[in-house]
Amino acid sequence: MSDLIELRDRMRAFTDERDWAQFHDPKSLLLALVGEVGELAELFQWVPADQAIERAASDPLRRRAAEELADVLAYLVRLADVLDIDLAEVTRAKLADSAQRFPAGDVRGEAPDKAL
Amino acid sequence: MSDLIELRDRMRAFTDERDWAQFHDPKSLLLALVGEVGELAELFQWVPADQAIERAASDPLRRRAAEELADVLAYLVRLADVLDIDLAEVTRAKLADSAQRFPAGDVRGEAPDKAL
Amino acid sequence: MSDLIELRDRMRAFTDERDWAQFHDPKSLLLALVGEVGELAELFQWVPADQAIERAASDPLRRRAAEELADVLAYLVRLADVLDIDLAEVTRAKLADSAQRFPAGDVRGEAPDKAL
Amino acid sequence: MSDLIELRDRMRAFTDERDWAQFHDPKSLLLALVGEVGELAELFQWVPADQAIERAASDPLRRRAAEELADVLAYLVRLADVLDIDLAEVTRAKLADSAQRFPAGDVRGEAPDKAL
Repeated sequence: MSDLIELRDRMRAFTDERDWAQFHDPKSLLLALVGEVGELAELFQWVPADQAIERAASDPLRRRAAEELADVLAYLVRLADVLDIDLAEVTRAKLADSAQRFPAGDVRGEAPDKAL
Repeated sequence: MSDLIELRDRMRAFTDERDWAQFHDPKSLLLALVGEVGELAELFQWVPADQAIERAASDPLRRRAAEELADVLAYLVRLADVLDIDLAEVTRAKLADSAQRFPAGDVRGEAPDKAL
Repeated sequence: MSDLIELRDRMRAFTDERDWAQFHDPKSLLLALVGEVGELAELFQWVPADQAIERAASDPLRRRAAEELADVLAYLVRLADVLDIDLAEVTRAKLADSAQRFPAGDVRGEAPDKAL
Repeated sequence: MSDLIELRDRMRAFTDERDWAQFHDPKSLLLALVGEVGELAELFQWVPADQAIERAASDPLRRRAAEELADVLAYLVRLADVLDIDLAEVTRAKLADSAQRFPAGDVRGEAPDKAL
């Protein structure tokens, strides 16, 4: 089974069991997503750019980064669900579109202003 | 196949074909993620809270929301990849943990300060 | 004296006294700013949109919102300082520009996609 | 005159002339703030950390960074206004508080998890 569908169903059950769907309008979920992205950002803010991967290879940063990545994904999945959007499908479509807009031969090794 | 693994592999191939891995340190990917969350936020900022789902049910908001959700997921998947974190696995673990921290009987119908 | 200049000077002294300028490259300050915006977002995420002003009129939300607004401004001021940008001056210029791009007679009562 | 008060008054007039106060509830302004922070993040996302200041010293990055910093400040000032919070005053208070929580002698040269 698709893991994004599984996570969607888990978040849906988690929400319904707590009667929290009443709080999950899109703007509220967006703010919750922003909150989790903020927590992820705080973990890395003062880590030198060239040491970030190494530091995140072991605890405590590894465990904390994993938790915040999970929270971001959980709210993203929930937001897509309330908007009735199939997250896996639209992401596949967007990547196919980006591959066309940025032909490898044209942009090789150059950072575009916007890649996606 | 897991769709998060599939998207990880697609993002990895997309990146390698363009020689863009050099730009994908964690802090840079975090800023890219923030950029996409910002674009998603802009789509909904002036929509009245109680009309957001309805407006997002049809174009142009539906198409644009889908694209930005996709971009957020793409960078999230890529960030987890460079950190060598299994996004599906850690999200399952985090949801199990949240289910224990917030017993349905205790929090039913009440918005917690932090749910995840 | 301009309060933005005063805050800039205070942040500069605070930073120098702790030898923290070494951590304050623009991308790191941006992530710190994102972290504070995230904390602000979390305060309001589950508050119904039409009750937000009323709830923020008294503690504890009032005090916490004030603290997070302060943190966002502090990092914004610090980021502008390391970029050697006069925050008050560029904001005045941007507002003058926005006033021209959005003539009151044309956009009255209609939410633009992007106002600033 | 305080520049934060001046900017608050300008934003208030800009909003009233366009009858846009109806869109400016706190959660909507927060999403607008997130949108502008996202645009700022996008400007720096692929710039190597140690080249960010140098690149932002000249156009086009200088001009664009100034505009986005201005937009972030404008929405921050507007959000504080609708919450009836004196941004300069609370920021002064928060910095005084941070100076006490992080005595220079204790934290010199070490990046704290959270400085503000």
